[in-house]
Amino acid sequence: MRIGIAGYGKLGRSLELLAERSEDVEVLGIFTRRDPREVDTYGAPTLPFSSIGEYKDEIDVLCLCHGSSFDLPTLAPILAESFNTVDSFDNHKDIAGYKAQMDAVAIQNSHTSLISIGWDPGFLSLMRLYISAFVPGGSVNTFWGRGVSQGHSEAIRRLDGVKKAVQYTVPREDALTLASLVCHNLSDTDRHRRVCYVVAEKGKEDLISSKILSMQNYFLGYETEIHFISDEEFDKYHHSLSHRGRIYSLGSSGRYREIKHSLYLDLEIGSNPDFTASIMLSGARCVYKMQTEKRYGAYSIFDVPPSYFASDKSENVMKCL
Amino acid sequence: MRIGIAGYGKLGRSLELLAERSEDVEVLGIFTRRDPREVDTYGAPTLPFSSIGEYKDEIDVLCLCHGSSFDLPTLAPILAESFNTVDSFDNHKDIAGYKAQMDAVAIQNSHTSLISIGWDPGFLSLMRLYISAFVPGGSVNTFWGRGVSQGHSEAIRRLDGVKKAVQYTVPREDALTLASLVCHNLSDTDRHRRVCYVVAEKGKEDLISSKILSMQNYFLGYETEIHFISDEEFDKYHHSLSHRGRIYSLGSSGRYREIKHSLYLDLEIGSNPDFTASIMLSGARCVYKMQTEKRYGAYSIFDVPPSYFASDKSENVMKCL
Repeated sequence: MRIGIAGYGKLGRSLELLAERSEDVEVLGIFTRRDPREVDTYGAPTLPFSSIGEYKDEIDVLCLCHGSSFDLPTLAPILAESFNTVDSFDNHKDIAGYKAQMDAVAIQNSHTSLISIGWDPGFLSLMRLYISAFVPGGSVNTFWGRGVSQGHSEAIRRLDGVKKAVQYTVPREDALTLASLVCHNLSDTDRHRRVCYVVAEKGKEDLISSKILSMQNYFLGYETEIHFISDEEFDKYHHSLSHRGRIYSLGSSGRYREIKHSLYLDLEIGSNPDFTASIMLSGARCVYKMQTEKRYGAYSIFDVPPSYFASDKSENVMKCL
Repeated sequence: MRIGIAGYGKLGRSLELLAERSEDVEVLGIFTRRDPREVDTYGAPTLPFSSIGEYKDEIDVLCLCHGSSFDLPTLAPILAESFNTVDSFDNHKDIAGYKAQMDAVAIQNSHTSLISIGWDPGFLSLMRLYISAFVPGGSVNTFWGRGVSQGHSEAIRRLDGVKKAVQYTVPREDALTLASLVCHNLSDTDRHRRVCYVVAEKGKEDLISSKILSMQNYFLGYETEIHFISDEEFDKYHHSLSHRGRIYSLGSSGRYREIKHSLYLDLEIGSNPDFTASIMLSGARCVYKMQTEKRYGAYSIFDVPPSYFASDKSENVMKCL
């Protein structure tokens, strides 16, 4: 399988290293909007993003490693005209619309796209779906973090007077306890608090604080902490890439609902981009198989039979059963 | 969806109660080889197993609740001639052969069968497959128990001189620790020990012990404990239906494999038959959908797109993403 990597931030770099180590994958090129001569890769050739169309027939699957906030929504539908694609688009509430848009383009051009495949959305989405179907009367509570939310960090960085900013999503301790004891679905604001570290221009702290706290969908309604710190402190302490995802489910059965069932999943991720890249590369293999079977269109992980994710269909699949 | 329940042991009974509570499901009948007048159900009509063929056109999906050791391998392929079926056949090493047999019958008769769908094989099989695909360089260790293994209990009961017997599969503490610390796949015998409680005829204890310990595929190579107990003690203490399944996975990424990832899943099941029934009923809904789409043949959970397990495709699926 010959892949291309579009976008070379942390995710693209993780994907390159992983692909270079995989015997079945060849990285044909990394497409960047920066000056390709100034991009230091693990070894794959860098090419100008503007030339990507020339590689239309040489790339089996193009891995889209751009951000979800601005780049993917505009670039992905254009790239899906010329390529089979895989991405980890993660704006949960916009996924349905994004999928419809990608589906139309992919079908029209006889391409296959697998969208929103990372650890969440992606792996944990699968868990939620299967838990909802299998655990009788089951609650499902997902906790993210402690880890950086790119979307929330970006939202702060766009504010006037902000020089640097990072936002950690942190599970609320009381909610973790509650989810492990009571069969009840908690809201997102009940489950998480948001901890922000900001480097600000002098005198603008109060205004920034009030703007953060009133930001709808991002901070409003959440328990939010804001710490203004120095440039040095920021650079020294805030470069962790780790993340965590936990799911609690409680259910019951029996004549009087007296029989209890519980499920606990704890995913500790040393590097968010590395783990996401690993799932995306697995998704790229699916896209490659589906494309050879002429299964065109845009798919989410829910549309793909699990067997497509086994490296060798007949043997490894049966080993897992 | 009108279902039939074939076999009315603990699993059939759990399935009946669950189905009666589901608005979208009607239990058309329970088919038993016992005298139907002597079978006390939650309310569904009992019918002689021999009459099952008469209900061929009235049952959408037949839920096979027979045991995996003897009944399913012989009965299921016959029933798949006349019905769409779902079962939780759990002899891991025979699944491939069983599936091929069911597939041939189902295709020939334009029926759909979903096989081996319970919590393991089934739910945990899915977890193993996705973990293998997604966790970079990941180990996967599954631990069963403490809980009763029907197959192992039956194997003991067949021995001469055994009146009653139950076998608990128990994770080895050293293996649990190892799996949480080291990225290495442990063997089944490394991970589990087998604890047996037997009511025996007087004087036959030694012979029974040596026969148990030398039984290939079941006890040979395992750390095995055998306790001979009285009839009264057996009846008093050995009717728990609970079970447990845990999966540990460790992986690594990064240039020097210095970045660590870990996954821990803990499924605590209050009642094995209740939980298995819940997954089977969810599987019956899939079979029903697939049959209307003329997807004939025998499928394992690996062949079915996850979205088929969502109760309402468009809405609930997106909620999980």
